[in-house]
Amino acid sequence: MTSAEQKFIQIMKEITAYDEAISLIGWDLRTYIPKKGMDHRSDTIGLLSNKRNELKTSEKMKALIDQLKTENTTPVIKKSVEEAEREYEKFRSIPSQELTEFITLTSKSETVWQEAREKSDFSLLQPYLEKIVEFNKKIAEYRGYDNNKYEGLLDDYEPGLTIDVLDQVFGQLKTALIDLVKKINQSKVEVDSGLLLKHFPKDKQKSFSLAVLDKMGFDFDAGRLDETIHPFATGINPYDVRVTTRYDENDFRMAVFGTIHEGGHALYEQNIDPDLHQTLLADGVSMGIHESQSLFWENFVGRSRAFWESHFDLFKDHAPKSFEAIEFDHFYRAINEVKPSMIRIEADELTYSLHIIIRYELEKELINGDLAVKDLPEAWNQKMEDYLGIKPANDSEGLLQDIHWSAGDIGYFPTYALGYMYAAQLHAKMNDEIDIDNMIRLGDFEPLKQWLTENIHRHGKMKKPLDLIRDVTGEGLNPTYLIDYLTNKYTDIYQL
Amino acid sequence: MTSAEQKFIQIMKEITAYDEAISLIGWDLRTYIPKKGMDHRSDTIGLLSNKRNELKTSEKMKALIDQLKTENTTPVIKKSVEEAEREYEKFRSIPSQELTEFITLTSKSETVWQEAREKSDFSLLQPYLEKIVEFNKKIAEYRGYDNNKYEGLLDDYEPGLTIDVLDQVFGQLKTALIDLVKKINQSKVEVDSGLLLKHFPKDKQKSFSLAVLDKMGFDFDAGRLDETIHPFATGINPYDVRVTTRYDENDFRMAVFGTIHEGGHALYEQNIDPDLHQTLLADGVSMGIHESQSLFWENFVGRSRAFWESHFDLFKDHAPKSFEAIEFDHFYRAINEVKPSMIRIEADELTYSLHIIIRYELEKELINGDLAVKDLPEAWNQKMEDYLGIKPANDSEGLLQDIHWSAGDIGYFPTYALGYMYAAQLHAKMNDEIDIDNMIRLGDFEPLKQWLTENIHRHGKMKKPLDLIRDVTGEGLNPTYLIDYLTNKYTDIYQL
Repeated sequence: MTSAEQKFIQIMKEITAYDEAISLIGWDLRTYIPKKGMDHRSDTIGLLSNKRNELKTSEKMKALIDQLKTENTTPVIKKSVEEAEREYEKFRSIPSQELTEFITLTSKSETVWQEAREKSDFSLLQPYLEKIVEFNKKIAEYRGYDNNKYEGLLDDYEPGLTIDVLDQVFGQLKTALIDLVKKINQSKVEVDSGLLLKHFPKDKQKSFSLAVLDKMGFDFDAGRLDETIHPFATGINPYDVRVTTRYDENDFRMAVFGTIHEGGHALYEQNIDPDLHQTLLADGVSMGIHESQSLFWENFVGRSRAFWESHFDLFKDHAPKSFEAIEFDHFYRAINEVKPSMIRIEADELTYSLHIIIRYELEKELINGDLAVKDLPEAWNQKMEDYLGIKPANDSEGLLQDIHWSAGDIGYFPTYALGYMYAAQLHAKMNDEIDIDNMIRLGDFEPLKQWLTENIHRHGKMKKPLDLIRDVTGEGLNPTYLIDYLTNKYTDIYQL
Repeated sequence: MTSAEQKFIQIMKEITAYDEAISLIGWDLRTYIPKKGMDHRSDTIGLLSNKRNELKTSEKMKALIDQLKTENTTPVIKKSVEEAEREYEKFRSIPSQELTEFITLTSKSETVWQEAREKSDFSLLQPYLEKIVEFNKKIAEYRGYDNNKYEGLLDDYEPGLTIDVLDQVFGQLKTALIDLVKKINQSKVEVDSGLLLKHFPKDKQKSFSLAVLDKMGFDFDAGRLDETIHPFATGINPYDVRVTTRYDENDFRMAVFGTIHEGGHALYEQNIDPDLHQTLLADGVSMGIHESQSLFWENFVGRSRAFWESHFDLFKDHAPKSFEAIEFDHFYRAINEVKPSMIRIEADELTYSLHIIIRYELEKELINGDLAVKDLPEAWNQKMEDYLGIKPANDSEGLLQDIHWSAGDIGYFPTYALGYMYAAQLHAKMNDEIDIDNMIRLGDFEPLKQWLTENIHRHGKMKKPLDLIRDVTGEGLNPTYLIDYLTNKYTDIYQL
């Protein structure tokens, strides 16, 4: 090993140590930290992030990048050097003092968001959000963009994606969704999700969720499940991946489908090639690809007829007696009911993407200066009415429902719908090789997990997102797989 | 504020950030981390510790110390500079590479210890412990000492303490303890702790422990209680202080007195003057003083007649029905039974110090090369027989019971007995000003907590340990307070 390689490996280990500490602090901040500790912890995160970013933007790093680009090194180091250079350019574009301020700000605003959400009082969050939007505008300028300022942010979450592609793809999806929803409204099939809203004790929901996570192949020796208001998955490293969920004792769907969703993210993180640990590549390749993994498990597995054919008995073993009388077909239709909802994470598969499109449009307007933060609640509520036909009664069930903007993440939301399209495309390809529904019916998820590990998980960031999709499916992003899947599924359920 | 002051404050903030991250990781490592994550986390701790130590030993730090010693600055900065200089000298004495190796080693050996303890297999730990002893010998040489190599380690935990003083004080205590134990053996009073060994469900023990912590004045908005094999308290900062306890469903004393003990440590950390946060002084002044706080609450409050006079009803409210018939006097004597025990943390007040003296003597021999690690189990067992008249059946209840040596801490144990003497001395002084037993009987602990905060807690590391004791009690360390207290208490209980 050359001296430059050794030094580069050491610097990657240091960056990994900071990443792991920051991830753990972030997990703690949302799970177990006592109230008074919250404020002070943001200083700690800010400082450690700053130290990490100093390493990423150091002269030493630049010299190693330049040196290693001339050397004939291993594929992992070669790709890590590419990633290091991308991050070097990215961070160097923003003055480190501003970045630290931004991280400290968002760490604080996350806790303010919790309070604002509880009190349904947007005015608490507004000054923070105004600063966050201004920061993001500056970041977009620093990063640079071709046509639209918003692309300067989007590129961070889904490298290579343009507004043109996004507008076109979302347009295609929107048309199809509106058409399907219209047909469903005219359907004579009665679907009643009300029959699911029976009391289901938290501990029983938890044991069922744990059983499903276990069947999915989640490794509990390398992870855990906790409880938070806003569920998430965090991969501290491949040996320690933590998911959280939220229990609503009057609606088990929140916890069960939430856990399967976060479990999908977790399987990705747990199955990254161990050789990539302590490099810059031991992470999901993009937000969209990450979301494809969670949505694959939540919707294509967890809401499938095959899954419930094989797991309805297990479910009833955990559920209270009041669930016993529910017939399978009623249950299956109920968990797939299409009904506009205020809350994104409670939305059905079909209308979900409309929630995303609303956020996408508002984000673009905020960044391009076409909308002021103070006018956001009204704009949000208006779009909800226009697209979904329902209007939030308060900001808690309106724009305060999601943590993303408070956490400083603008340009993130589109990746959810993108992940959905990737998931459908991967599902179609996997189905050419494995009879997915048959495996699900047998309760054997191992071949599905192995296929995803082989084709997606293990690569970490070794490939670019669009290359990864092309290598696996033989083509670029194609939204028709999702449209076909939704059409088939809901034609069956609603007998369209 | 001068430029040097500003830079020094910034560097202290950075050190604090590392300290907090390391403390949180340490807490997680003992509470919630999944199994496979453990091994890899030690790399993270090693690296962050190294970064922190680099700051403490940096040329920049040295220049700031030298500059600030010439400036007329605030008392807090002046004292912080003294502390920075002490740490600078301390760390500079040890090559940083060796220190990192040591930290990584001990982080690993802590997890090996857990396994060795579970399997009662000392051979698993032996190679780690051999390395730890060799490291500590080197550290003692690097640090320097006057008469005995062991002092090079001891000084780290209790600055200023010498082997001469320790030998003399422990000698005095040992004589008194042997005399008391002898008299107790001849006593006709029957004490039966067996009546306490009834099944007591974990959740009920927990709710009683939480109620007591609350009455002590533990701030749950600035702390929490969790469960671990080896209980501890960790002050991440004054706003986030976490204690742990261990539940034995067949012996509630483990959890109840353990929680009160750790709660005493926690009150110290929670009540350090907020002005000291993010300086080098926001910590207990020495291990001995820290232990005086935990032992004050555990023994002088928690095992007092007055405490149980006022809390026996609360206890019975939480305890199962099988406890109902126990008479108060039987109960009070039972929780104060003197009976040699294998396990230090289960030992009674009286024989406890003998456990410490055994560890002290063995440590001294290990460091001075008079005892090999491989011969430790035999030496341990022999001393247990000689001093306490009982011999461990296996190493789990022998030398594998404590985490300290596995964690690299040699020279720490004496501070437990020292803390006991400090506690008795503080208790006597406090009693001159407050009728302690009367307040306890009223269930009003606030004056006790306030006295301790005023005289001990708030000062953090602003004073040296012996100065602190002298300022509060008007004299130096005096073991007769402890001897008098034990003599009075056990003369009453056993009618000597």
